[in-house]
Amino acid sequence: MANLQDIGLSAAINILSALAFLVAFAILRLQPVNDRVYFPKWYLKGIRGSPTRSGTFVKQFVNLDFQTYLRFLNWMPAALKMPEPELIDHAGLDSTAFIRIYLLGLKIFVPITSLALVVLVPVNWTGKTLETIQNVTFSDIDKLSISNVPSGSDRFWAHLVMAYVFTFWTFFVLYNEYKIMANMRLKFLAYENRRPDQFTVLVRNVPPDTDESVSEHVEHFFCVNHPDNYLTHQVVYNANELASLVERKKSLQNWLTYYQNKYERNSSKRPTTKSGPWGLWGNKVDAIDYYSSEIEKLSKEEEVERQRVISDPNAIVPAAFVSFKGRWGAAVCAQTQQSRNPTIWLTEWAPEPRDVYWPNLAVPYFALTIRRLLMAVALFFLTFFFMIPIAFVQSLANIEGIERVLPFLKPLIEKPTVKSLVQGFLPGIALKIFLILLPTILMLMSKIEGYTSLSSLERRSAGKYHLFIFVNVFLGSIITGTALQQLKTFLKEAPTEFPKTVGVSIPMKATFFITYIMVDGWAGIAAEVLRLVPLIIFHLKNSFLVKTDKDREQAMDPGCLTFATSEPRIQLYFLLGFVYCVITPILLPFIIVFFAFAYLVFRHQIINVYDQKYESGATFWPDVHRRLIIGMIISQLLLMGLMSTKNAENSTPLLIVLPILTIWFHIFCKGRFESAFVKFPLEEAMVKDTLEKATEPNLNLKAYLQDAYVHPVFKGGDLYKHLVIDEEESSPLVPTKRKSDRGSKLNSGRNSDVDQ
Amino acid sequence: MANLQDIGLSAAINILSALAFLVAFAILRLQPVNDRVYFPKWYLKGIRGSPTRSGTFVKQFVNLDFQTYLRFLNWMPAALKMPEPELIDHAGLDSTAFIRIYLLGLKIFVPITSLALVVLVPVNWTGKTLETIQNVTFSDIDKLSISNVPSGSDRFWAHLVMAYVFTFWTFFVLYNEYKIMANMRLKFLAYENRRPDQFTVLVRNVPPDTDESVSEHVEHFFCVNHPDNYLTHQVVYNANELASLVERKKSLQNWLTYYQNKYERNSSKRPTTKSGPWGLWGNKVDAIDYYSSEIEKLSKEEEVERQRVISDPNAIVPAAFVSFKGRWGAAVCAQTQQSRNPTIWLTEWAPEPRDVYWPNLAVPYFALTIRRLLMAVALFFLTFFFMIPIAFVQSLANIEGIERVLPFLKPLIEKPTVKSLVQGFLPGIALKIFLILLPTILMLMSKIEGYTSLSSLERRSAGKYHLFIFVNVFLGSIITGTALQQLKTFLKEAPTEFPKTVGVSIPMKATFFITYIMVDGWAGIAAEVLRLVPLIIFHLKNSFLVKTDKDREQAMDPGCLTFATSEPRIQLYFLLGFVYCVITPILLPFIIVFFAFAYLVFRHQIINVYDQKYESGATFWPDVHRRLIIGMIISQLLLMGLMSTKNAENSTPLLIVLPILTIWFHIFCKGRFESAFVKFPLEEAMVKDTLEKATEPNLNLKAYLQDAYVHPVFKGGDLYKHLVIDEEESSPLVPTKRKSDRGSKLNSGRNSDVDQ
Repeated sequence: MANLQDIGLSAAINILSALAFLVAFAILRLQPVNDRVYFPKWYLKGIRGSPTRSGTFVKQFVNLDFQTYLRFLNWMPAALKMPEPELIDHAGLDSTAFIRIYLLGLKIFVPITSLALVVLVPVNWTGKTLETIQNVTFSDIDKLSISNVPSGSDRFWAHLVMAYVFTFWTFFVLYNEYKIMANMRLKFLAYENRRPDQFTVLVRNVPPDTDESVSEHVEHFFCVNHPDNYLTHQVVYNANELASLVERKKSLQNWLTYYQNKYERNSSKRPTTKSGPWGLWGNKVDAIDYYSSEIEKLSKEEEVERQRVISDPNAIVPAAFVSFKGRWGAAVCAQTQQSRNPTIWLTEWAPEPRDVYWPNLAVPYFALTIRRLLMAVALFFLTFFFMIPIAFVQSLANIEGIERVLPFLKPLIEKPTVKSLVQGFLPGIALKIFLILLPTILMLMSKIEGYTSLSSLERRSAGKYHLFIFVNVFLGSIITGTALQQLKTFLKEAPTEFPKTVGVSIPMKATFFITYIMVDGWAGIAAEVLRLVPLIIFHLKNSFLVKTDKDREQAMDPGCLTFATSEPRIQLYFLLGFVYCVITPILLPFIIVFFAFAYLVFRHQIINVYDQKYESGATFWPDVHRRLIIGMIISQLLLMGLMSTKNAENSTPLLIVLPILTIWFHIFCKGRFESAFVKFPLEEAMVKDTLEKATEPNLNLKAYLQDAYVHPVFKGGDLYKHLVIDEEESSPLVPTKRKSDRGSKLNSGRNSDVDQ
Repeated sequence: MANLQDIGLSAAINILSALAFLVAFAILRLQPVNDRVYFPKWYLKGIRGSPTRSGTFVKQFVNLDFQTYLRFLNWMPAALKMPEPELIDHAGLDSTAFIRIYLLGLKIFVPITSLALVVLVPVNWTGKTLETIQNVTFSDIDKLSISNVPSGSDRFWAHLVMAYVFTFWTFFVLYNEYKIMANMRLKFLAYENRRPDQFTVLVRNVPPDTDESVSEHVEHFFCVNHPDNYLTHQVVYNANELASLVERKKSLQNWLTYYQNKYERNSSKRPTTKSGPWGLWGNKVDAIDYYSSEIEKLSKEEEVERQRVISDPNAIVPAAFVSFKGRWGAAVCAQTQQSRNPTIWLTEWAPEPRDVYWPNLAVPYFALTIRRLLMAVALFFLTFFFMIPIAFVQSLANIEGIERVLPFLKPLIEKPTVKSLVQGFLPGIALKIFLILLPTILMLMSKIEGYTSLSSLERRSAGKYHLFIFVNVFLGSIITGTALQQLKTFLKEAPTEFPKTVGVSIPMKATFFITYIMVDGWAGIAAEVLRLVPLIIFHLKNSFLVKTDKDREQAMDPGCLTFATSEPRIQLYFLLGFVYCVITPILLPFIIVFFAFAYLVFRHQIINVYDQKYESGATFWPDVHRRLIIGMIISQLLLMGLMSTKNAENSTPLLIVLPILTIWFHIFCKGRFESAFVKFPLEEAMVKDTLEKATEPNLNLKAYLQDAYVHPVFKGGDLYKHLVIDEEESSPLVPTKRKSDRGSKLNSGRNSDVDQ
């Protein structure tokens, strides 16, 4: 077991690597050539222009103002400077709510840590159990943990009381945070400008009608059942085929640009390519001609498909976006049942136009239930049996296997150095690839489940990932062994035994988790701010594909907060905090450092880098809250298990109260706040409608809503622009002259608010 | 263990006692003097008049037409004669849906039984395992059960396949039944006449306002937020105190009548009573004078309280019944969230006026969550620890305890015969009293939980009773021992072990359950039809309290279907059926007899006897469905446990599919049908509104709704009458001249449709 020196060494290494990342970041971000990697958000907002137009040639690429290097950490205070309301305006409520999860971690754990260090550490340290046992090696960390308290000691009262104090403190913080979040969301929805989704309801499972088209049927139904409120509707085209054609054309276009650039730089030789798949096989052809003709062919195909989709009645899916004369009408329609058959005419709030996941709009009810059953079973197998196919791949991917499949590599990999490298590397690589692919797999599963908006897809994937992390990282590290073995243990042991088995191992795993927090948390977050992959990709694209400013705009990859993967990871830190706050409080400072550092970094990122794909108004908060509650309950059960092995069984009746209280607290909060995230109160809707009627009596809402929900392929990039402009015209962050074509009319010259 | 002879004997005894009850019933019901006990429903409907006015004196009390005795079983076909639509008209949808549960039992188990007897009984009988074991006593029943199949035999395939067949058959029946039920409910709601609750929404947790009264606040809020739909509203008075005064007055009135009658019969002596509590202590006073003056006193008090309630603003609770101009408006308001704070302005469909549980209308949200937490904990303790206080009472209630408390009884109970009787009787009596009180206790708990309608209270109590029966009757009989011991077993054993422990004991308990079914099911149902307790009470009341026809009307106790206790008991029979259909199929015929007999009896009872207190439109069906699903899952898990002890572990993967499918089926049905029972589709509402507007353009809805939701004490008995008349005037069952005063204008002479 690691002692304090080992931990210190590990901490030093991780802090140094984190620092190295930060220094690299500090230097790289000051180079004008990297400006679009580290400040893409400002470019997209149109506030920051390309720095390549001003100054000398060198200055365009390298920052020679050495004074700025001295202030290389000044992004940290700058990240904190922007006040929250402005942050919501600038980055959206989703991002702001997301970084508040880190802040929530600080709010919960800073007071708990202080108290635990003051009360529990002395109680544990003077327990002196471990010193009396001679033949067991123990680390200094363990002396600070509950293991150092003798069995059946009265000292456990301290832990018991602290468990209560910590629980109630967490309740207090969580309740307040939920309240703040609900108010923030309602305020956000109330003060935001007119948006199409406020007036619109997504109707699915429109029943087929022999006499009427989908469009007529929808119109008649809503004219009859919402006569005073119905305004207009838009049918949904099944444009998935068309979308894939557009996608392919875009990729060909990139290749064409690449070869054109190549030819421009070296005009002595026309570039060539091969006509087979991936340009690897087939006849050698002139690249520029080949791609030009391919694009032309595809354009024709696209046009045919576009006509087919618009004219063919079978291309209309039985779903529609129905718009109402006011928010009240939409709120009513979204919250009520329309037909006596509850599986047709399903209505729900329309997601933002950007947030719609188009391919899923047409899944019928029965297929949905079947898909969800299958995915639930699949998730179970994925979580508990994922090691089986990986072990199979690993058994294939050894030296002999490679030699059999690719005999020509034999001389190379028979070399001792290469051989040992391959043997050491290969078994791990299958697992690594699986873990990298996992979020994609989970997202695919959520898509199969048939959710209709990107935000709900992300939320569902996060739930799946949370389960996976809990079983395979948390439990997997504590009871070493695969998830499958844990499942067996779980099924074979009594329900009261399982918390004991896990609880007993918890204090011993503290050092492991401290190291984990430093590697995954500290260094991982520092790597996040450096953005190494987008940096490389941007420069590659910039060299090969960029011709105009617009191309450069598209070459930027601002990225976004990936809720589906990040949030479950944060939940792991919360879980570790809850579990160890009573057992090994010395772990808490490491978690606090993680939360504080991550808060800083992500606040900087959402200000300067990330560009969210949609805005859901923090709809994910109930999920966050629920998972925190799950973490608390798990920690309480494990504490109970641990205590009962310490001859402190009398504490069980007192400890069982905690999970019951926690469940009750959850139900209470759910009833109190959740509806703010799923429903829209009529009172609000009425207030906004009345206000709008008074201020804009001549508003032509029908024209405003006419094209709001059109599949993006029918609009090109116009859809997004339309929205962004609309929002900014009414509340511009800074004065901007940009009206329609974002790329060409950028404000030149660097803006003064670089670091905000 | 019992063999076939024992079972036969037990069956004979139970069949004989059931027959005795039936014969007694057949004779008693033909006596005109019992007419109001066995046909109260028809009196309440006003179709049947008192038989005492016609014929000779003797004929008024005893039926001398001996021909009718020969046809003593002819109530059975008569009970089946009334077609279902007419039954719904006559007895209401609640009652009709309730007896369909028995019919559902027949639909599920008749085909299953035939198949099981044809396939599984031969498979088990020829298993010949039990015959080879010499030193184990076994019964003939066991030879027909799965115990007779050798471990690890291929014969288990038959059981496995049958488990699948039975499950899918049950799915099929359940799905159809849910569909029929949902349609029946929607049709019932659609075709029923105008009722106040169609236009009305119950609003609770009206926030306090310093400037406005509750009434003004409600009016303003709904005028603003439902401007086109709001019609009127009624505030709710806290009239609990007044109601208890009225109740006391009624009881005094009864005593007064009793003494008046006594005096009339024997006018030589004025009756006396004692003025202390229960007329047992205190001064001797003239009874008629005493009660007259008491009633006068109470009437004054009542008048004062009535004035106080009406004038005191504090007597108005923060709840109101808000009525709308149409069903559409009410449907919208009931299904949407009103305020941004989801714990105020809570709206839900108003229950029928008769169905409102007035004392619970004013419970605030926070108190509700606390109460529900406490009741959940209380239910847990009640279910698992109820034996502790009973054992305590039993330990007190022995001979010595009685002698200590009531020493004067010593000479009596020291007698050997009395002593043995007391010793044998006393321990059981505490348990018996508890079991009789249990439904009341559970109902009290539901009331504390704060539900606002009688129907929801009944549904909640049924849920609690179901848990109690499952743990204490089903599990308690299988693993003999108290629930507390079961809880310990459950916690100490692995989750896979518990089904094994229970599963292994199941085949051995078949004979016990067969006896249970005969005693509780067969004989119990036969006793139900006899109505011994209401018979005695009616004759007591008739002799002492009845003066006028109206009094006699009130002396009738038609009773009603007690959903809260009957439904969980039926569920036990379903559970037994599901569990034993694969294991000991010979138990099934006994269940079928129960279902068929109970169906007959209850159909007769709802036609001729019961008078439901409210009509909820079969809102309970989702609960029935859910508990059937729970029963199926339990049976599947137990079968899995049993199979794995029979060296047939390979079947586990196949059997685990069943509960997963069942859960999926439940989710599917819930999504497909449940909303028919909790929501009201706007389409329906709009159709009815439009129709009404066309047929009755001059309807004064406001006047119609004005007094619909007034606390019953403000109306006396008028409230119920009002409703009944309204329903019948529009669709009278048979022509009746009764218009307003039910008691005085009864049709005299017996009607011809007695037995329908």
